[in-house]
Amino acid sequence: MIKVSIMYPNSPGAWFDHDYYRDHHLPLIQRRMGAGLRYYTIDRGLMGATPDAPSPYLAMCHLLCDSVEAYQSAFGPHAQEIRADIPKFTDVTPVRQISEVAVENSAKLSTVGSHA
Amino acid sequence: MIKVSIMYPNSPGAWFDHDYYRDHHLPLIQRRMGAGLRYYTIDRGLMGATPDAPSPYLAMCHLLCDSVEAYQSAFGPHAQEIRADIPKFTDVTPVRQISEVAVENSAKLSTVGSHA
Repeated sequence: MIKVSIMYPNSPGAWFDHDYYRDHHLPLIQRRMGAGLRYYTIDRGLMGATPDAPSPYLAMCHLLCDSVEAYQSAFGPHAQEIRADIPKFTDVTPVRQISEVAVENSAKLSTVGSHA
Repeated sequence: MIKVSIMYPNSPGAWFDHDYYRDHHLPLIQRRMGAGLRYYTIDRGLMGATPDAPSPYLAMCHLLCDSVEAYQSAFGPHAQEIRADIPKFTDVTPVRQISEVAVENSAKLSTVGSHA
């Protein structure tokens, strides 16, 4: 399984509408990707390494897919539409990363045996 | 629920032992935090926004806890021991962020009703 992480860097004055992101943007991605998207998660930045430090990212989402190819074939045809939605909730350009999921959920390790 | 994201920035020549990280470091965190840690996830960076671009982070882990206070009380007493383990798997200084979990797993939204 792979994880596509889309991370919105924090900076003074940056704007981010968390409600729109949760209620419209991610549901749009889900509708367009269909079964190519296993599930997604959304994080809202609270703080950095200490309570006084700003969070490095205002928000992140993580898209879980079976493979890089599954992600590309599900997201690619809708990339233009999805990216055109970004200015509706932020003025920040996101950083993106695709990762291999080494451990999806440690609480499930004993049952799925992925932690050999 | 909150998520503590520990992200190891990528750079040319940076060293990271993914096996040690998965098989020793995260299990150490789990043992020390006990019930204060709901579960964790581990990501291994594959690529950036395009297959040719390096992943911004070599690896990330995400620690899921009930609250910032639950995390601090479970992690704090063991922070020194856990940080002393870092040089065993990398020469990179991680970036840390605490986030509020807006959506933990979209596949569960219809049952838990957290997406009102």
